[in-house]
Amino acid sequence: MMNNENLILLDAAEAARRLSKVRACMSADGIGSALIRDFANIYYLTGRVFDGYVCIDMEREPKYFVRRPMHLCGENVVSISKPENMAEHIITDDAFALELDTLSYSAVQRLCRAFGIVSARNVSGALRRARSVKTPEEVATMREDGVKHVHVYSLVPKLYRDGMTDVELQVEIERVSRLEGGLGQFRIAGDSMELFMGNVLAGENADAPSPYDFAMGGAGADPSLPVGADGTVIRPGMSVMVDMNGNFNGYMTDMTRTFALGSLPQKALDAHQASIDICRVLEKMAAPGVEAKVLYEEAHRIAVERGLEQYFMGHRQHAGFIGHGVGIQVNELPVISPRSRDILQEGNVIALEPKFVIPGTGAVGIENTYVLTAGEGLKSLTNAPEQIIYFAE
Amino acid sequence: MMNNENLILLDAAEAARRLSKVRACMSADGIGSALIRDFANIYYLTGRVFDGYVCIDMEREPKYFVRRPMHLCGENVVSISKPENMAEHIITDDAFALELDTLSYSAVQRLCRAFGIVSARNVSGALRRARSVKTPEEVATMREDGVKHVHVYSLVPKLYRDGMTDVELQVEIERVSRLEGGLGQFRIAGDSMELFMGNVLAGENADAPSPYDFAMGGAGADPSLPVGADGTVIRPGMSVMVDMNGNFNGYMTDMTRTFALGSLPQKALDAHQASIDICRVLEKMAAPGVEAKVLYEEAHRIAVERGLEQYFMGHRQHAGFIGHGVGIQVNELPVISPRSRDILQEGNVIALEPKFVIPGTGAVGIENTYVLTAGEGLKSLTNAPEQIIYFAE
Repeated sequence: MMNNENLILLDAAEAARRLSKVRACMSADGIGSALIRDFANIYYLTGRVFDGYVCIDMEREPKYFVRRPMHLCGENVVSISKPENMAEHIITDDAFALELDTLSYSAVQRLCRAFGIVSARNVSGALRRARSVKTPEEVATMREDGVKHVHVYSLVPKLYRDGMTDVELQVEIERVSRLEGGLGQFRIAGDSMELFMGNVLAGENADAPSPYDFAMGGAGADPSLPVGADGTVIRPGMSVMVDMNGNFNGYMTDMTRTFALGSLPQKALDAHQASIDICRVLEKMAAPGVEAKVLYEEAHRIAVERGLEQYFMGHRQHAGFIGHGVGIQVNELPVISPRSRDILQEGNVIALEPKFVIPGTGAVGIENTYVLTAGEGLKSLTNAPEQIIYFAE
Repeated sequence: MMNNENLILLDAAEAARRLSKVRACMSADGIGSALIRDFANIYYLTGRVFDGYVCIDMEREPKYFVRRPMHLCGENVVSISKPENMAEHIITDDAFALELDTLSYSAVQRLCRAFGIVSARNVSGALRRARSVKTPEEVATMREDGVKHVHVYSLVPKLYRDGMTDVELQVEIERVSRLEGGLGQFRIAGDSMELFMGNVLAGENADAPSPYDFAMGGAGADPSLPVGADGTVIRPGMSVMVDMNGNFNGYMTDMTRTFALGSLPQKALDAHQASIDICRVLEKMAAPGVEAKVLYEEAHRIAVERGLEQYFMGHRQHAGFIGHGVGIQVNELPVISPRSRDILQEGNVIALEPKFVIPGTGAVGIENTYVLTAGEGLKSLTNAPEQIIYFAE
């Protein structure tokens, strides 16, 4: 007995809103139709992940090609066993596009052969831009996510035990996060990053450079995953930066708070305050139409003004950004970096993470996830105390 | 102060063994030189993950192009800031290859432009074949992994509490796995699967079809990650299948055991015994030179003979394989499926998972990870009791 289930989980109005945003971005790129395969994009368009494709064009309703699971149904749902089955259903003219930034070269070759074409346009950028401006429903979903994320962080001081390592503390945070409904999955676009549920950085380990494109590093517990907690025992005088996964509903909020054991040197306290101050300034400065790079420049200017430049966004190795879009994936548009060409738009959801690494102490600073409003700058979705939180000795 | 660190973490003899296997597979595919980017392949060749490329040809020592972290050094290590920097260092003739199965179409286009070529051969298959035959050092690493994996499973009965959901049980298993040194990261090749640390399937949820290419499904806790535990309360008469991540050192073992609360119907007990019996038969039948599909056929034959065909590898949705290679990633060669063309080789490490889904009860069966020996068939790396383990009521 197979119980059929409607493929589309979004309500009709929300699905139409997302579709019309995607179409507008496709049109701006000269794309007339596109076949979508990336799980994050399929989730965006339908509200669920399935193994298959969504075909979008400018006029007709989308078509949903489903390989698995086989019990999904609805209007315009076509069951396929292989990509070649789609050829008779889609029109592949000069304006046809595929997700060239995420599909493998071999996958694109196979699709082109199946459709009798030699190349396709690239729809990856259009989807990325469409997804960077969240709908009110998406913002509401992320707001709920932020509430849970904040709750998990409020439990962190109770999880600390004398003599704990960074890994042990992280494991206890993972546990409470999962018990609060955290899905664990850390969705990252592209192939330049790997991470398991987030980062807890204690003391000098924050200064260990990692291969990945994260704001902070950490040596990690194994050379197969060289990032984050490395087994450092948490000792007095160390900062402990907690930057853990907040994916409770398919959307992610990104949030960092700094904890510490014992007292930290004045330089670390100053840097932490600088991080908070930078957030306050950028929250007001951000507005639709502002260049993303201007936010980076202002953050950098404040760091320099306070004599903290050498610790800004790392010490042995520096990250090249202080913020990034976040949503279904942790690295969405806009990018807040010196060479970013992104222009802020109402509905962007942006994580700001102006952080510092102080030798001998560790990482300090905060990260919040914000939604960009029309008239009130950035509004935080991760409302929790921002001062350093001290573990009971 | 930047402390430099040698890039190569493998000992010289082991690095040479792996290189010579890769070269032999490249040569068989008519490939003269290749640029390797995939993290799993970089880890295989060097013993660490870094952001960059490894260039292999038939005569010269490999070259290591490192973008990040910047403190890695050693012979033939070249620092790059972008792929274009490699052009002057490599020879891209007709026999030059890239990993076309994992690099995105856009990434391949960019590399081809940088090197002034229009296309490249595909080295993905050569790497996959080379990695499918483990070196003795890799087998030793996986053996250590299996010991830890087995230890974690031995703790599962103590983690069960009356009234627990499948998610809650899974979270406690995740915790003990992580505290035993589990890295959490579940490395999967390709874009057809997503999973967070493994699967715990209780009762009827085992029969919920998933979009992913795993042996078993499960509805999952959210449509953004529709696989595995879904919040089912564990009740008497349910089986609880535990198939959790065993990545303690960069290599994965794959292992499943079935737990239960109260008594299970005879059909479920028979199916569980059939799974064990299938493993016993295949352990002896497997030998270098045997076709992988023959193992599938024999497993299927036993399932049919015992009247269990409709429950074999799923009930509402059936998986098309009963085993797979495993190593750095969970889905390596050989594939044990009816249409597999793979021939078993000494040194293959293979997970066998002949499982059944019994309506009203749940999933039963076992999974072990084995190394294929020259004269003694498959030797298990996951040596733990295989009978159903009953939770204390």
